Amino acid sequence: MIRAAIVGATGIVGQQFLVALKNHPWIQVTALAASERTAGQSYRKALTDPSSGALRWFCAEPPVEELMDMPVVNATELVTEQLDLVFSAIESGPAKTLEPKYAADVPVISTASAFRYEEDVPMLIPGVNTSHARLLDAQRKRRGWKGFITPIPNCTTCGLAITLKPLHETFGINSVIMTSLQAVSGAGRSPGVIGLDILDNVIPFIPGEEEKVQKETQKLLGQLNGDSIEAAPFSVSCTCTRVGVLEGHTETVFVSTRKPCDVPSAIEAMREFAVGDDIASLPSAPEHMILVNDDPFRPQPRLDRDNCGGMATTVGRVRTDSVLDNGIKYVLVSHNTRMGAAGGAVLVAEMLMRDGYIG
Amino acid sequence: MIRAAIVGATGIVGQQFLVALKNHPWIQVTALAASERTAGQSYRKALTDPSSGALRWFCAEPPVEELMDMPVVNATELVTEQLDLVFSAIESGPAKTLEPKYAADVPVISTASAFRYEEDVPMLIPGVNTSHARLLDAQRKRRGWKGFITPIPNCTTCGLAITLKPLHETFGINSVIMTSLQAVSGAGRSPGVIGLDILDNVIPFIPGEEEKVQKETQKLLGQLNGDSIEAAPFSVSCTCTRVGVLEGHTETVFVSTRKPCDVPSAIEAMREFAVGDDIASLPSAPEHMILVNDDPFRPQPRLDRDNCGGMATTVGRVRTDSVLDNGIKYVLVSHNTRMGAAGGAVLVAEMLMRDGYIG
Amino acid sequence: MIRAAIVGATGIVGQQFLVALKNHPWIQVTALAASERTAGQSYRKALTDPSSGALRWFCAEPPVEELMDMPVVNATELVTEQLDLVFSAIESGPAKTLEPKYAADVPVISTASAFRYEEDVPMLIPGVNTSHARLLDAQRKRRGWKGFITPIPNCTTCGLAITLKPLHETFGINSVIMTSLQAVSGAGRSPGVIGLDILDNVIPFIPGEEEKVQKETQKLLGQLNGDSIEAAPFSVSCTCTRVGVLEGHTETVFVSTRKPCDVPSAIEAMREFAVGDDIASLPSAPEHMILVNDDPFRPQPRLDRDNCGGMATTVGRVRTDSVLDNGIKYVLVSHNTRMGAAGGAVLVAEMLMRDGYIG
Amino acid sequence: MIRAAIVGATGIVGQQFLVALKNHPWIQVTALAASERTAGQSYRKALTDPSSGALRWFCAEPPVEELMDMPVVNATELVTEQLDLVFSAIESGPAKTLEPKYAADVPVISTASAFRYEEDVPMLIPGVNTSHARLLDAQRKRRGWKGFITPIPNCTTCGLAITLKPLHETFGINSVIMTSLQAVSGAGRSPGVIGLDILDNVIPFIPGEEEKVQKETQKLLGQLNGDSIEAAPFSVSCTCTRVGVLEGHTETVFVSTRKPCDVPSAIEAMREFAVGDDIASLPSAPEHMILVNDDPFRPQPRLDRDNCGGMATTVGRVRTDSVLDNGIKYVLVSHNTRMGAAGGAVLVAEMLMRDGYIG
Repeated sequence: MIRAAIVGATGIVGQQFLVALKNHPWIQVTALAASERTAGQSYRKALTDPSSGALRWFCAEPPVEELMDMPVVNATELVTEQLDLVFSAIESGPAKTLEPKYAADVPVISTASAFRYEEDVPMLIPGVNTSHARLLDAQRKRRGWKGFITPIPNCTTCGLAITLKPLHETFGINSVIMTSLQAVSGAGRSPGVIGLDILDNVIPFIPGEEEKVQKETQKLLGQLNGDSIEAAPFSVSCTCTRVGVLEGHTETVFVSTRKPCDVPSAIEAMREFAVGDDIASLPSAPEHMILVNDDPFRPQPRLDRDNCGGMATTVGRVRTDSVLDNGIKYVLVSHNTRMGAAGGAVLVAEMLMRDGYIG
Repeated sequence: MIRAAIVGATGIVGQQFLVALKNHPWIQVTALAASERTAGQSYRKALTDPSSGALRWFCAEPPVEELMDMPVVNATELVTEQLDLVFSAIESGPAKTLEPKYAADVPVISTASAFRYEEDVPMLIPGVNTSHARLLDAQRKRRGWKGFITPIPNCTTCGLAITLKPLHETFGINSVIMTSLQAVSGAGRSPGVIGLDILDNVIPFIPGEEEKVQKETQKLLGQLNGDSIEAAPFSVSCTCTRVGVLEGHTETVFVSTRKPCDVPSAIEAMREFAVGDDIASLPSAPEHMILVNDDPFRPQPRLDRDNCGGMATTVGRVRTDSVLDNGIKYVLVSHNTRMGAAGGAVLVAEMLMRDGYIG
Repeated sequence: MIRAAIVGATGIVGQQFLVALKNHPWIQVTALAASERTAGQSYRKALTDPSSGALRWFCAEPPVEELMDMPVVNATELVTEQLDLVFSAIESGPAKTLEPKYAADVPVISTASAFRYEEDVPMLIPGVNTSHARLLDAQRKRRGWKGFITPIPNCTTCGLAITLKPLHETFGINSVIMTSLQAVSGAGRSPGVIGLDILDNVIPFIPGEEEKVQKETQKLLGQLNGDSIEAAPFSVSCTCTRVGVLEGHTETVFVSTRKPCDVPSAIEAMREFAVGDDIASLPSAPEHMILVNDDPFRPQPRLDRDNCGGMATTVGRVRTDSVLDNGIKYVLVSHNTRMGAAGGAVLVAEMLMRDGYIG
Repeated sequence: MIRAAIVGATGIVGQQFLVALKNHPWIQVTALAASERTAGQSYRKALTDPSSGALRWFCAEPPVEELMDMPVVNATELVTEQLDLVFSAIESGPAKTLEPKYAADVPVISTASAFRYEEDVPMLIPGVNTSHARLLDAQRKRRGWKGFITPIPNCTTCGLAITLKPLHETFGINSVIMTSLQAVSGAGRSPGVIGLDILDNVIPFIPGEEEKVQKETQKLLGQLNGDSIEAAPFSVSCTCTRVGVLEGHTETVFVSTRKPCDVPSAIEAMREFAVGDDIASLPSAPEHMILVNDDPFRPQPRLDRDNCGGMATTVGRVRTDSVLDNGIKYVLVSHNTRMGAAGGAVLVAEMLMRDGYIG
């Protein structure tokens, strides 16, 4: 069993890591780390609101009882000697200093954006850009680390990149225009999106999100050339909005392809998206990376976010677009806090274990 | 004073006509018509739920007391002799037979889509395609009617066409990609969008909507050539979704222009969109056709739908788009049941009165 | 295996029956019945919207594949010879004539209210009023039926009666004041609660609901005396409201007890509510009939409705009430479409099978 | 003109004071105070988010242009010499030290709870407990202040006390049981209720709220005896919940009266609730203190919160209650941030000006 620490364990993403790793066949949580404020307390105590006694547990799944009495350590003092892996669920600010500190000794898989755009840092989606993992060797060498840092992409990028991958492989992508209707869970809880702002409303701006999606999509679908990734040569333009949905990002996508692409061919490419047997057999891999639903009223975030345990991306309304060259348009729903966060990070860990990068 | 009938008076759009015409300086409601079921009853009685005694009045504004005792007539038996104008707020099915019947004698301004795509029928947005009104002469002549039919465009088209107009005039439009996040009020109440479907959800399909927006935008921004309108020579591609918002459609728009167009020029064109003094002075005309808000978090439907009494379209987030030629992208909010329905129809009536087509 | 028909199979409650009976160890669905409109079609066809081709399946769980090709029969022509049991999920109007027709031959367990208040008809909640089942013998005899009718109580009554039961047994109940905050799923889909009415709103009236809750609670907690049930001698007063929640009714309850009752004793009575081993071991029985949560911010409908598969009632905020004699107040959440509908009805079937009333 | 400062001017309640005082005929805002962080900046600058440039203005009404350039002073350094009145919109913590400091020189009307329960401090609702204002003389004398402190009651208490007042006067109240369904605006924005907690949910606990309502209702309807208020001799028991509503608290109320009280008499008492001509003619006084709506589906927060500019309390569903002695039950809606906050405080100021306590 791989011994893993969860850093940022008291936050909502940290809690999702506990859930995603519960009864995991290969990975055991052996350390929980958080800010100085809760260091030294049991995990249960660290989650307990002192004034009301209520447990600040935010997942739909019940708290992971077997970890509730584990002591929480100060993230700045996490000892990596007994660890094979660190899952980092902290904000980008502290990630900038803490993640390299851990990575000197041990692999770090992170949901933070701090290192996503570094030249020697791959963001990984198993089955989409598996080969980019090889960049980790260069990273280790260049930085002189025993471990490495590999962040997962932004939750909004995730479903977009997954659905573009088979189109890119089959037809070649020219350009992408996307509008997202994002769930409030993506903003977390500190303070996240407040009810007064989102009830009976849409918020048409999420700071930094559009730049992330544009840059990350190009990197994810890019080519590994020697020690760097050449960004995919297509442009991405998007508008990211927040809507009154709890979980599950909806995205409307308009794609221009290089080769002609009709609706049945696009659907076929997505349905037959082959991630390889090595990926498909990982414990957290979804049965289908992409589900295409023929019902014109689907996908809907509430009905489709949990498909394949929240690890599948659901596509619908595949149609011809009249504006773009070889234009295809569709709608997707992706679970932003499963495949787009802790679930996706655990899947990366599994792939890197299988490929010998961890453990 | 012009004497107007409201047909479909008991429905939600009909009620909005009553509100929009309350204390109108030029127009007096002199007849209310609805289906056979309520014919002969007072308007108040027709709105009263027999089992609970509750008044089925659906506008935020209070019921229009001075019309509550007016008898409701059967729409199929409406006598047009004492009328100068009919506002039609009925479904497209019955509109197909009833509106021509009225138009034989009297002008009909309609929110139904039944006649929008007929060659000799203009859809009008005052200030946007004012000149199309001249097509009414051809319509009268060709059909041998004393009156005419002029429908307003679909509520989702309305804000899009208004914001595209100054861009088209200044830069010429090549193509438009749009995603709408539409309010539930657009679906009406029979049964409209049910709570079970829209709470914590997005519905990615509104039957027929995308085709309407695509076709209507081209017609609205087209050129009147003799007795027909030549559709504007640009393509429109859109995805229309429904979100949990009560009123106010939000649209993300990506535009390619013929001439180069930068962000300040696009904003300037929208801010200075000149509708002409004759339009600007109409009683229902908004102070601004387009408001551009510099706050990156705007427009929001709850905060901006009521700008200028729900008659202005609010634009924000004007940015460069990297995918389209001379690409510009922005977000708009338009009030779907004010400017996009009864309010817009009354504005059309005012323009046609001023121009001698009515009264 | 018991052979059961589901009548009203195409509606939302009917679909929930299919889900609740999927892989049931004792009961097999052998017939699906609905209105004349869909009779003769396969169940899949009957659920398919002809214009869009979309499947009108409304449960969060996936459609029950093994029943999708079963032909739907006309409910008025259902042949009872090959059946051991009918689950009726139809409206009260048609229930009045159809349920007796079925009951002449076969037991009928119904979610409709049509027969709830008949003297010889027990409403059953296993573990709460198990002994009332004996009234079925009197019903059969009096009506000359081979079968019988037993409706489950209203979904709002269900959680209330369950939580009152241990208090009534331990302390005796004097009176109950209750306010419900009910989910929209309780209103179904025809048309149910429309989005325009419930977004950013509360609807303070649900026709007929308060009378049902008051009468049913007294009957459920009443005593079987010979061939009739003597209503429990306490009064119930309630206000029933609808809130913007998808599933799960929340109720604030104020109870006056005969014997003094403090908070720890009330909690203890609810926690130790013993339904008997025969009930506890039924396939659909929840592990706990009542869960008491000490977190003052619980129960919440979204977090607690699915406890024990939606079959447990969750209680919190147990406090002393200063107004009523021996006053106790608390908040409960109960899943209105699981324990309060199909799930509760299946549990009744299991109890009646075990006790020899069915099969 | 009275010269008033608004302390806590940058928060949401402070902003509501600016709106409530815009164009006020008697009161002029001459100072704006907030925390040290924004002291010295213009009000516009103080509201501007430095990273996005967006104006953090939270009211539906537009920002009050004539005050946007006023400099904000540090609340701890507010100079009272040029002031006739302070409106305090700060949290209870800082209110404990700041309000007495201001009150040494000048009257303070506060939305904070810090002093509500002091023996010599009246909470005032004009027309409900006008006579309690006389306690201000005792307060001044006892504390040696030139000014005084008078807080308005909690927003949930406000509508309850207003509707109980005519019942208490006419029938005498024995006891009250109340359940509130409160809007998210009552929790403010720091961070207030987050979207992740309230979408598709009810939160059944608002810390401290129930105790406030119980104590304040008794004090508000109590008798001024010499230099203290004798709490009204009835008990109040309540459960306060939060629902997904933006503005407007809904309350279900069950009342036991001393004298028999039937439904028509209760309605008549509420409809004819006479606040006195001196109160009715104040600039902010609503046309009706209580509106009783006969529609069984009313009041609804979205439809009724804005009645009489948000200053009226709307009542519906008045029925007999079967549990309490002489029981009456009803539902009310009250605007928590108008009559229940800034609007109510301005009304108190007007009354105290008219009665010579201010200016």
